[in-house]
Order: sequence, then C-alpha cells, then structure tokens
Amino acid sequence: MAHARPRVVIIGAGFAGIHCARRLKKAQVDVTLIDRSTSHVFQPLLYQCATGLLSEGAISSPIRHLTRRHRNLDVVLGEAADIDVDAREVVVDRLDLSRFRAPYDYLVVGAGMRTAYRGNDRFARFAPGMKTLDDAHVIRRKIMTAFEMAETIDDPEEQSAWLTFAVAGGGPTGVELAGQIRELATRALEREYDSIDPSRARVLLLHGGDRVLPSFDEHLSSSAQKALDKLGVETVLGVHVTGVGDDFVETTRKSDKHKEIYPARTTLWTTGVEAVPFAATLARALGVEQDRSGRIPVTDDMSVPGHPEVFVCGDMMAYDNLPGVAEVAMQSGHHAGRVIADEVAGKANRAPFKYRDLGTAAYIARRHAVVQSGRLHMRGLPGWLAWGVIHIAFLAGARNRMGTVMNWSATLLTGSRRERAIIYGDTETARTPYGHWER
Amino acid sequence: MAHARPRVVIIGAGFAGIHCARRLKKAQVDVTLIDRSTSHVFQPLLYQCATGLLSEGAISSPIRHLTRRHRNLDVVLGEAADIDVDAREVVVDRLDLSRFRAPYDYLVVGAGMRTAYRGNDRFARFAPGMKTLDDAHVIRRKIMTAFEMAETIDDPEEQSAWLTFAVAGGGPTGVELAGQIRELATRALEREYDSIDPSRARVLLLHGGDRVLPSFDEHLSSSAQKALDKLGVETVLGVHVTGVGDDFVETTRKSDKHKEIYPARTTLWTTGVEAVPFAATLARALGVEQDRSGRIPVTDDMSVPGHPEVFVCGDMMAYDNLPGVAEVAMQSGHHAGRVIADEVAGKANRAPFKYRDLGTAAYIARRHAVVQSGRLHMRGLPGWLAWGVIHIAFLAGARNRMGTVMNWSATLLTGSRRERAIIYGDTETARTPYGHWER
Repeated sequence: MAHARPRVVIIGAGFAGIHCARRLKKAQVDVTLIDRSTSHVFQPLLYQCATGLLSEGAISSPIRHLTRRHRNLDVVLGEAADIDVDAREVVVDRLDLSRFRAPYDYLVVGAGMRTAYRGNDRFARFAPGMKTLDDAHVIRRKIMTAFEMAETIDDPEEQSAWLTFAVAGGGPTGVELAGQIRELATRALEREYDSIDPSRARVLLLHGGDRVLPSFDEHLSSSAQKALDKLGVETVLGVHVTGVGDDFVETTRKSDKHKEIYPARTTLWTTGVEAVPFAATLARALGVEQDRSGRIPVTDDMSVPGHPEVFVCGDMMAYDNLPGVAEVAMQSGHHAGRVIADEVAGKANRAPFKYRDLGTAAYIARRHAVVQSGRLHMRGLPGWLAWGVIHIAFLAGARNRMGTVMNWSATLLTGSRRERAIIYGDTETARTPYGHWER
Repeated sequence: MAHARPRVVIIGAGFAGIHCARRLKKAQVDVTLIDRSTSHVFQPLLYQCATGLLSEGAISSPIRHLTRRHRNLDVVLGEAADIDVDAREVVVDRLDLSRFRAPYDYLVVGAGMRTAYRGNDRFARFAPGMKTLDDAHVIRRKIMTAFEMAETIDDPEEQSAWLTFAVAGGGPTGVELAGQIRELATRALEREYDSIDPSRARVLLLHGGDRVLPSFDEHLSSSAQKALDKLGVETVLGVHVTGVGDDFVETTRKSDKHKEIYPARTTLWTTGVEAVPFAATLARALGVEQDRSGRIPVTDDMSVPGHPEVFVCGDMMAYDNLPGVAEVAMQSGHHAGRVIADEVAGKANRAPFKYRDLGTAAYIARRHAVVQSGRLHMRGLPGWLAWGVIHIAFLAGARNRMGTVMNWSATLLTGSRRERAIIYGDTETARTPYGHWER
C-alpha cells in the first residue's frame, strides 16, 4: 500500500540536514530526521568548548527542540547502518543495536565527515580530532590535565613535554585551536599555578602548506600569521606529521625529508577528514565512486547520478570542488529540500544549485580575526567584531546567543574561563579516573 | 630540615576542604589542596545538571580559579592513596598512576562519601548514583536516551519500560530527581516526540521510610508529598529495593516482605552513601574505628582522637550525629581551619565546634520547595522563592550565578531545557556509541 504523502528520510542533523528539513517544513511530505546524536552541534565553535570558554549546551541544540515546530517531521536517534536501494529503505541501528527500517521516497544524506589519519590510524589513540562534542571534551580533558601533570612533576624535561601542545593542521580549526590554547594559558591559567608558569606553554602549529589558512587570501594569511606570532604560537610550515606517541610528535619536512622530534604530551589532529563509513555503503549500493576523501559525486540538483531520489549534501558531497564549510552545507541542504518540495508540488524541472559564497572567517586571538567575503577582506579588530556578529547570528536559539555573549564578555573582561569541567563519561572510571589517560 | 611554616594538607576540595582553605587564607601556613577532580562541585544542584537544566560548568568552579587569590595555597590534582603517619606524609597518585609524597604538619581530610549499594554492588551497573559531575552526565544520558528508545519502539510493553523511571531513595536528592524527571517530561519534552507522549512517563519514588524527606518536619513532608502527587510522581513508601536489572526494579515491602517487580529501563540510586576508600586507609593508619558508613570519629575540635594533627570534616566525619549536608561540611571545614590557624598563632586551647543549624531545603517542583530553618518552616511558593535565593547565594562566582538565573528564568517562562547534550566521554565510543548502553 502506498504511503499517503512522499516520505523523506534525512540522515544527519548537521547544517545540511537541518536546513533541508527547514526548507521542507511546509511541503506535503513526511520527514524522518535520523542522527547518531540528540544534539545539532554548531561545529564552528567546537574549539571554544574544547578550551573552556563555552559549555556543550551553548554550542549545541537538542535536535527535537530545534525542530519542535515542524509538524511533518519525526526525529530518530540511530545510526544509518545499511540501505536497501530496491526497497527504498534505510536500515537504522538503535542505541541497543536492534534495527529497524525507515522507508523513503526521497533520501537526503548529510552525514558529514570524520577525522582521518590517512594510513596512520595508530595516531588516533594519541591525537584526537575535533568533530564532535565528545572530541571537544576529550581535548578539554587532555589540555587541562596536561597543566595539572606539569604542576606536580619536578623533572624539567618531563614538565616541558607536558607543557607542549602540538596542533597538526593550519586550516581554520588548527589556527583557532592553537590560538585558544595560548590564550587559555596566558590569560585564564596564568596566575592559577604555583610550580609552573602556564604562559610558558609551547604551542606548535604544524602545517603542510607554505602558509596558514590556505583557503584565505594571501594578505589575510599573513595577517593571521603575524597575530599568531604575537600570541606566541610557533608555526612550522612545510612539514607533515609522520609520528605521534604518548610523549612526542615527529614531523618530516616536505622539501628535504628532514625529521624533527618534539617532546609533547598533547597532540591534536585537525589535518584530515574522510566521509563517515555510511558513505561507502551508500556508494556501493548506488553504484557510484567516492572521491579520495570518500565524498560522493552529485549532479547540479544535489542528487546522485542515476538516482534522482537520493541526495547528498554538505561535507559528504563532491560537487564543483566546493569546500567542506558550514555555508556550503546549509545551502546544499536547503537546495535538496527545495528540489524535493518543488517536485512534490508538481514542478517538472529541477532547479540547478548555485552556490553563493558569503565568505569565511577564522578567529585568531582576542581582537583579531580574518573574514573574507568576495572582495571584502577584514582583519584585526574590524574582522574580530564581524566574526562575533556572524557567529552569534548563526548560533541557534536566543538562549544560546545570550549565554554565549555573556560568556564572551566575561572572558574578555576578566580573562577567566569557567567551562573547564572535565567529564570522563562514566561512573566507574570517574570513581577511579586513573588509567583514562592511557586509553 | 624543618619547613619554614607549618604545612597543611587538605584532601578534598568539596565544601569542607574549600571552607577550611578559606579560613586559612591569612594564616602563617602553607596549604596543599589535593582533589581527584579539577572542579569544586556545587552538589546541591547536581540533579539540575542531570536533568538538562544547567551545564556542568554552571554548577562547578575550577578549584584553581576558586582559590586563585590564596597566596599560601597550592592545588594538586591527584588521589590520596596512602598515608604515612610516622613520617607525616600523604602518598598521592597522579593521573598517570605515578606517585609523590605530600608532607604535612596538619592534615585535613574532607574527601566525602560515594554511592553505596550495601552488599548489592551488582546494582551499580544498572542504577547509577549521583555524587559527581560524571554521575550527572551518566544520568542525563540514561534519561534522554530512554525517551529516544521509547520513540522508535513499537511494542507497548517495551515502550512503557523505557518510559518508566525508578528513583530509589526519598531523601532530598531522590525527591528532587523524581520531581525534575516529571517536569522534564511534562514541560520540556512534551511536544517534542511523535510516537510517544513524554508526559505519560512514569516516575516511581521508592522509599524505605514511612514519609518522604524524613529529615524535615512532618507537615513539610506531607506538603512535599502532595506536591509530588500533583506532579504525577508515584511514591511507594515502606519498601526496600531488592533487585535491579537492565529492565526492571524489584521492591520488597518491609512490613510483609511482599515483592513487586516494575518493568523499568532506568533506575537511579540515591539511597545510600559510604565513605570513600581512603577513609579505611586513614582509620587503619590512625588506629580508629569507622562507623557503619565508614565515617571517622572526631572530637569536638574536628581532630581524630589521639591525633591532634589530623582533622576529618564534612560528610566523612562522625560527630554528634550531624547529617551529611553542605552546611555541616562548610562549618566543620571552617572550624578545622580555625583550630589550625589559632594554634599556629600560639593559642593554647582549641575551640570546640558548635554547629549552627541554618536549615535545609528541598526543591519539589515549579513553585514548590520546602525550607526548614529552626522554627521557620516554608513551603509552596514562599519556600520556592527562598530556595532560589539560598542556592544562588551559595553558588560560587558571579558568572555562575548570572548564568543560572538566566537559565532558570528561561526554563520557567518557556519550559524548555537546553543543557541536554549527551557526552560519552571518549572519541572511540563517540564514533560508534553503541555498546555504551550496555556498560
């Protein structure tokens, strides 16, 4: 028996999924929105959660709360495990590993990317990436406990390894994280320790290219580099990270293969992403080929070639070399929603996607950010103010906005960071937290 | 060689430890404050973190931040593992399990209590207690995911087990938790689900005594009971919890040993505490006997009999049948600090501790709390307002106060709760969250 209205299944409640759902809010369809988490995360501020500025609640919204006014939408907590293209059903794992099937007439996949170590999976244990709230909490825990360890250790070499933080990757996430660790050390923690001087913390920004923020215009890159230098971040350009362990990070210079080993107890990984495993399942089922990072090719209506009923948007789609940024995810998700809504309403031809580059921004330090929007380039204080306005505007919910503005203001005025609580995540290990470090 | 100034080691940065440190701020001593966590937790609001109202940052303060103006104090992250009474040294485990020794002239132990299952340790796996930030996050995760599981399950019996929440213990923590789960279900979640009606959520309050809140006056108990009834909490009095599993809780009536089994996927444990393991180590080393809950007897100056240099305060001390509440911890910690400061300043006799009962309070529901302070009894709306003022006044830091007032106001006005983000605590399981449920 046919379903009364076309059923749309959306996998992933990130920027793409949420914007697709919004576009479909008034369409004559029934939407099922599936995510592995109960929260929609505002990823551009994840690094502020990791460095003690904002709580996970401030940079995320319960998906159900965000979509509570959508009358045609069901939210489901689960992981897309498989797809049955012939039956048009997604197989979903519940949290207890039991499964159910979600039938669709249209499928929209915006499941995003995860941290990739490109053949160096053993690095994962030592160098967490930063894609999820859990990642942010793990990084927060690593950073905060590194200072604590340094405080109780007498050996100067050991102590300096605990006070060395290596960030692999000089894109926006790496730059923001490196900058924030220095600001945390020099402002929030400066006077809180006795045996160590937190402002001595060494932050290494290890980058493969010849300038940081390669997606920005050259003069913005160089302005960001100056701000990083002033902040005390040590930038090393033209190197690959070729080794990470418990207490060191190894780089290899691209030009002459020179290897360097830095004693560092904390290494963070922002230098590679790959599509989540479901992308491979999907590609196989649809008979298309993923690109090098696992992205799935789409045509100009966001649908997969040969499968007009399946759309891929956001970071997971390969289309016109568009970058994996929030803006692309929002617009492509919105476009998939529009194509579906139009088709359900009886429109014959599908509108092609036109990406409108509204620009990108990266936070460097207090009073310094770079913003690039077409020909408009901003840096320093004006860039920083624009950055703040943009991020507050896009943050979901009046409450998150107010709370974030309040926290930012307090941190600006006093330098203090209050969201530094460490969560181990389960009661057993909280009772005896030791050994967690070894995980 | 003798240390220049007397060294005070404080174990535990809870209410007792922090208030002891404060009293010693201007004393001619060197203080080392040791805690297993980097945060001082405001335990009276832990249940609000567990039920999505407040972030862990809002109800806690970094210990270093809290004590940043103490010039005579060092903070150390570590766990007291052993004590050498003759050498006057505490053996401390660092996070990586390496050890160091902290020498003392005075030792103050306020390491508190942990959840106890009294011979039923197998319950721990299914029924978390609520003493730490991690407990609060585990409970939040259990509650939030229970609603999610119910939403995707068709079998009505299974569904109703997911929607049944059992709270063992009818003291303040149990009453507050039960009330908050009902408020969460009926107000914040009510319109956010499609297949289930969250307001149908059954909350069982299982209590051994013949009335809830036994530490309060009888008419306040009965007022609280009425408010709980109105809220839809099902109170079962005169029963012990004698079994807990993945999907059930079993009670045995005290009067006739009648057993009852409730299908329930979530059971929370607030009905017993015991001193942390270090108390046994300490008692053995000092040659004193712990009471039934592991508490350590102290004389009227808070010192352990026969050991005038060792003090025990807060929940871990057994003195004059004082209850394990925040007020006792604060005052006893303060007193130990005072005795030490006086002695160091040359005062010959130690002042005896006089507990000043400033009262206790318990939150029941919106517009209803009970407050008891000597002859002053408050309930309903006046009690609720008094409760709010008291808790804001005691919360540490202007920022936490402002944030909390803002969150409370928003939740009052709209019913929404925004701090519902689920943290698994590590990246590996965040990538595949399944199995966590089974832990």
